[in-house]
Amino acid sequence: MSADGGHRRLVGARVRRLEDPALLRGRGRYVGDIAPAGMLHAAFVRSQHAHALIKSIDVTAARALEGVHAVYTAADLAHHLKHPRIPVGMPSGAIRHVLDPEVLTSREVCHVGEALALVVAESRSIAEDAAGLVDIDYEVLPPVVDPVAGLTNGAPQARLDCADNLAAAFRVNYGDCDSAFNKAAVVITEHFELHKGGGHSIEGRGLLAQFDGGLDQLVVFDSTQMPHRAKALIATMLGLAEYRVRVVAPDVGGGFGPKFVFYPEEVAIPLAAMLLRRPVRWLEDGYERFTATTQERDQVWDISAAADAEGHLLGVRGTLVHDHGAYTPYGIALPGNSATNFIGPYVLPAFDLDLKLVITNMIPATPTRGAGRPQGTFVMERLLDRLAERLGLDRAEVRRRNLIVPRQMPYVTGVKTRDGGTMTYDSGDYPRCQADALQKAGWADFPARQRAARAQGRYLGIGLSNYVEGTGRGPFEAAGVRIGPSGRIVITTGATAQGQGTATILAQICADELGVDMSMIDVIAGDTAATAVGLGAFASRQAATAGPAVLAASRTVKEKILAAATSQLEVAPADLILRDGRVEVAGAPGSGTTIAALAQALQGLPGYALPGGLEPGLGADAIFSVNAITYSNGTHVVEVEVDPDTGAVKLLRYVVVHDCGRLINPTLVEGQILGGVVHGIGQALYEWMRYGEDGQPLTTQYADYLLPIANCVPPIEITHLESPTPLNPLGVKGAGESGTIPAAAAIASAVEDALRPFDAKIYQLPITPMRVRAALSKSQRRN
Amino acid sequence: MSADGGHRRLVGARVRRLEDPALLRGRGRYVGDIAPAGMLHAAFVRSQHAHALIKSIDVTAARALEGVHAVYTAADLAHHLKHPRIPVGMPSGAIRHVLDPEVLTSREVCHVGEALALVVAESRSIAEDAAGLVDIDYEVLPPVVDPVAGLTNGAPQARLDCADNLAAAFRVNYGDCDSAFNKAAVVITEHFELHKGGGHSIEGRGLLAQFDGGLDQLVVFDSTQMPHRAKALIATMLGLAEYRVRVVAPDVGGGFGPKFVFYPEEVAIPLAAMLLRRPVRWLEDGYERFTATTQERDQVWDISAAADAEGHLLGVRGTLVHDHGAYTPYGIALPGNSATNFIGPYVLPAFDLDLKLVITNMIPATPTRGAGRPQGTFVMERLLDRLAERLGLDRAEVRRRNLIVPRQMPYVTGVKTRDGGTMTYDSGDYPRCQADALQKAGWADFPARQRAARAQGRYLGIGLSNYVEGTGRGPFEAAGVRIGPSGRIVITTGATAQGQGTATILAQICADELGVDMSMIDVIAGDTAATAVGLGAFASRQAATAGPAVLAASRTVKEKILAAATSQLEVAPADLILRDGRVEVAGAPGSGTTIAALAQALQGLPGYALPGGLEPGLGADAIFSVNAITYSNGTHVVEVEVDPDTGAVKLLRYVVVHDCGRLINPTLVEGQILGGVVHGIGQALYEWMRYGEDGQPLTTQYADYLLPIANCVPPIEITHLESPTPLNPLGVKGAGESGTIPAAAAIASAVEDALRPFDAKIYQLPITPMRVRAALSKSQRRN
Repeated sequence: MSADGGHRRLVGARVRRLEDPALLRGRGRYVGDIAPAGMLHAAFVRSQHAHALIKSIDVTAARALEGVHAVYTAADLAHHLKHPRIPVGMPSGAIRHVLDPEVLTSREVCHVGEALALVVAESRSIAEDAAGLVDIDYEVLPPVVDPVAGLTNGAPQARLDCADNLAAAFRVNYGDCDSAFNKAAVVITEHFELHKGGGHSIEGRGLLAQFDGGLDQLVVFDSTQMPHRAKALIATMLGLAEYRVRVVAPDVGGGFGPKFVFYPEEVAIPLAAMLLRRPVRWLEDGYERFTATTQERDQVWDISAAADAEGHLLGVRGTLVHDHGAYTPYGIALPGNSATNFIGPYVLPAFDLDLKLVITNMIPATPTRGAGRPQGTFVMERLLDRLAERLGLDRAEVRRRNLIVPRQMPYVTGVKTRDGGTMTYDSGDYPRCQADALQKAGWADFPARQRAARAQGRYLGIGLSNYVEGTGRGPFEAAGVRIGPSGRIVITTGATAQGQGTATILAQICADELGVDMSMIDVIAGDTAATAVGLGAFASRQAATAGPAVLAASRTVKEKILAAATSQLEVAPADLILRDGRVEVAGAPGSGTTIAALAQALQGLPGYALPGGLEPGLGADAIFSVNAITYSNGTHVVEVEVDPDTGAVKLLRYVVVHDCGRLINPTLVEGQILGGVVHGIGQALYEWMRYGEDGQPLTTQYADYLLPIANCVPPIEITHLESPTPLNPLGVKGAGESGTIPAAAAIASAVEDALRPFDAKIYQLPITPMRVRAALSKSQRRN
Repeated sequence: MSADGGHRRLVGARVRRLEDPALLRGRGRYVGDIAPAGMLHAAFVRSQHAHALIKSIDVTAARALEGVHAVYTAADLAHHLKHPRIPVGMPSGAIRHVLDPEVLTSREVCHVGEALALVVAESRSIAEDAAGLVDIDYEVLPPVVDPVAGLTNGAPQARLDCADNLAAAFRVNYGDCDSAFNKAAVVITEHFELHKGGGHSIEGRGLLAQFDGGLDQLVVFDSTQMPHRAKALIATMLGLAEYRVRVVAPDVGGGFGPKFVFYPEEVAIPLAAMLLRRPVRWLEDGYERFTATTQERDQVWDISAAADAEGHLLGVRGTLVHDHGAYTPYGIALPGNSATNFIGPYVLPAFDLDLKLVITNMIPATPTRGAGRPQGTFVMERLLDRLAERLGLDRAEVRRRNLIVPRQMPYVTGVKTRDGGTMTYDSGDYPRCQADALQKAGWADFPARQRAARAQGRYLGIGLSNYVEGTGRGPFEAAGVRIGPSGRIVITTGATAQGQGTATILAQICADELGVDMSMIDVIAGDTAATAVGLGAFASRQAATAGPAVLAASRTVKEKILAAATSQLEVAPADLILRDGRVEVAGAPGSGTTIAALAQALQGLPGYALPGGLEPGLGADAIFSVNAITYSNGTHVVEVEVDPDTGAVKLLRYVVVHDCGRLINPTLVEGQILGGVVHGIGQALYEWMRYGEDGQPLTTQYADYLLPIANCVPPIEITHLESPTPLNPLGVKGAGESGTIPAAAAIASAVEDALRPFDAKIYQLPITPMRVRAALSKSQRRN
């Protein structure tokens, strides 16, 4: 008899989120909700120039303002910092100039928004008033705001310590590109420009730090994806033993990549709390969101594809110039992802991309959702559209001919991973995924609909994009499962919830193993005190790394429950059933004992042996270690209507078929996909972080920087395929970023299709009305 | 080549205490030092009657006082408590009436000092003023203050729900006593009375509770020996999941047994902090120390010993009436220890003790240092003195003839342990221990010194006592060892430091294993957040249980260091040396890498494999499980002078030879022994908690309750024997309570010896001048 007693399987079910009862009632605990007695408020004085030398900072007037507790400049903090600069987050040998930010900049400011001084006061308004009284004398220097121009001879230096403005240069290459181009039937050469945009969580960044005198410990509430790394860096920067720092990511209203980065504020606010022995809170304001939180991706691709006469890709080569921004908080992984994700689900025999990462006087470029992959996908999919056009093939057909097929799985690409392995796709049925999406979207019938619409003067288009996403990145994640005498079960994990429903899926996994209702389970994520080690939230990894860790810990706990019950009940484990928090003897409902009673017994009582000679505590920790990446994939098909008079693009219908392996909770996956698609719609059509030639940001409020709102979003239909991965025992892959990756590519394809009568080409994002009009004006109206 | 690189062995060395630099500079963190912003102060309203019914409590005036935040009675707390009463700490089937205290007493008060209401106010003085305004109407009931009288027909009921005043009754027996007494050459029958006294830490009990809104967690600083149990009970009583409660025993200024007990205040103060959402602190005041903190031991023994003509014990039988006090916070283990420890280091073929635990209207009796053992030892040693006198033998000789000898080890006694095993002495050389002590103390020469003194009209006496102490009680203790990128090493443990130097000895063990200086090590003890499971401080167990756990965790960490270094340096583990925080290649000083760098590498970086395929984190947890008890032993010899005119006893010289197995730090062991002896001197001569017939405590300040001060303490000479125990890999036994156990027995023996000319007998403790005078008046002055 199995020990699960026929318990309802929760994994795979559309279970309601554990998180929602608190969040929907306004009982979430975000950093802004936490206000311990005696709390002070912080505001930063930030650079108003893109590139300048600080000649002097006068804080006299600010310090004199009533209600101000402290005003710190770099000079004030210097002797409290064990290390002057925040080390690069993702080191790489390809980095030519390590550009680590200071906690407060002491001399050379390199973008608008750099923190130069910190004010701590009784209230936020006093702190802001005092910040306004700080008088800074600058020597303004010329900025670099165009990465391509920054590489030319005679360009100004974005930083005085870096003559060539080149942060890093490297190639991603394999196969024989020369041979591929030599034997090509067709060569497509294109130029693409991808724009800068942000993560734009509902909750901005925020920190609340307090020094607990009783514990002799700094406790930092941090709206971050990476609390364990934040703990290590705060300890390092402040010269504290690690145990004296606890970082907690409480409820977090979205991470999306920018909260992966470790920021100067994450040192400055804790240090202020230590110096003042008072809780200090800082919450990002609207301007800081655009100027002090990292963004992504000005990229310029010049790229050529070689193919045979049937449209099979033979090779791709080209260059990618990437705006790296003013510092290197993240390293080179972002354009690296663009390059490696470029090949997507396709067989590409040869590839040679030359990458240049250019230092500019703009906010540092670090990943947002998709982490460079939407850019690589956009470029590949645009190339395939152009190839189809050149060969007179259907866009879907040219893709089908290039797709990796299931019998090739696991498919070893030519691309090297970060730690020297080879990028290998683990599972998936890419042709079926595309075929299902086309069928669902009515691809075959679309030309008829398009013709009918044109007859009415309406310009419809349809587009598609395939993608893969490397998810579940290691090297590990940690989890623990513990049961107390109350009978409540606590899952702890180094994974960090950002609002995805992490607690729910982990509870589903545990509840299935232990035969309990999910309501018995609490989940503590994002607290460095909960697990000794942990990584956090990135690379769509929570389900695929923390999930198996929870599974392993739950299984160990289950074994311990059965062993303890066997000892107490004198019944063999095989005759015991775990059900609803009880251990029952098979065939005797209501018999046996409770998990709570076993937990009580396993606490240990002085001088009494533990049941069954077991170790104390009804709990277990587990590490899930994984170095391979598991690849999700999917196909998006979108139908649009373009108004050639206004240049406006309206999305009519959006079809997603995607495969992220086994589904733990389809509802939650759909939430992730939906949100990702909307993020992608924003990137395709609306969001655009712009800078003036003087390096001043021009889009620092949501009136200028447009986020998609409800009426920008068409009906989105989602279909699941499930190709379990062999890389973890749950068979799950990640889904958090998938929705974003192909969206802009599919929309661009559809817009170009709608504008085919005008031969207008889309090579830039976002596809604004002005750009559509510009494309039309360059072309000849045919109909 | 060994991996320790010839590192200096710290285990066994007289290393200075890690704790002292902070404590000596006034930087300790006791509960009274912790004062978070917004903290409120608590005072309790306590019963002024020993036995009464509460007719009404009027808190109107108290609540109206300015600065008062809340006044709670039992009725106010009832619906916040998941369980109305605090469960008994050490359950036993022998308990006939479970007398669990309420958090605040609602109806029947059973001793002076019971908490009836709780006031929380802006300051301690306001809280006390308000407490004075609470108006309580009592119906006074007759009290039981004499346990023997409490068992007689017609005695008043100490509690209305318990007609016979008998909390528990049981026997400790083995062998054939009838046969022993039938064949005895001599039978000694004696009556002994042992008195009530306390633990009297330098720091009293205290609590600071705060509800952390950010963590959604109750954090309780508690001056306790048992933080993990406190966490479980607070969670149970308040109906909270265990993870929502964190208990920290910060610096604790002595435990000594009373802080083993879980008290009503440990629920009331946390509950107030939750209700008020403000930190609330309560510190025991002087009166509470005597009336609200448990004490030990009114015991009356009527006992007979049977021996053969050579003085070999054949059997002992008798009765023990034990004052249990008004509640059962501890169970029956205290008189149980008295009974089982009675046999001490002697061969006792038969034993039959009938124990009656009497409910009285006095403070509950729970262990203080020695936990009932000093009383058992006192009775046995007094019996042996009387036997020697009867047979005309030297007191040491009659003991020598009865001592267990080394070839009998492990020696299985006839006594059953708490969980059904048999009390077994693991190692020790009892005859050598006594012989060494006699030799050191000049026992053989003493009669000459005594005669010379008497010639001068001075009455000298010498006394001795042997003892064993069961130490290192299980079932387990937990420890962890973790190293961060800072290179600092943190030991966590479920053991709880009470000022003994626990951190120092654990650091010695770890430093030896890892080849580092102790200054690199921090120790976190007594924090439920530091280890998932833990027991705490009791039964002289820290070194013998946490020590091996730290050893095991350190060894695992060492293996991991070597494995990681092997992977990074490509050198076999056997060629690596751990020294001063570095891993060096043998023969190449300065080569290799640092432990800090390995810790950094093992943190894990997104997407990079960990060195050597190791699990993340340079740390390990370990559980040391043990169900057997390890027995320390020793012999005390004391020389006294008694003034027959005043009855005053002056101690002249005190010799200790003791054996607690392998010594980790002789200096610290000596500190424990010294403190224990002084505690024993207090019990023998000074300390006496007295009650009037109305149940009113009479000794509630240190002017009445006498603690030994410096000029009461003679030179104390300590010699170590080391008989390692086979029960743990360090070979260590406990020493914390040893000094106290034989002290009163040895002093009584010496006083009786000094008074031999008067034939005055000592059968009561403490040996006050009044009692000496009384004994003299009953006897005939001979000289």
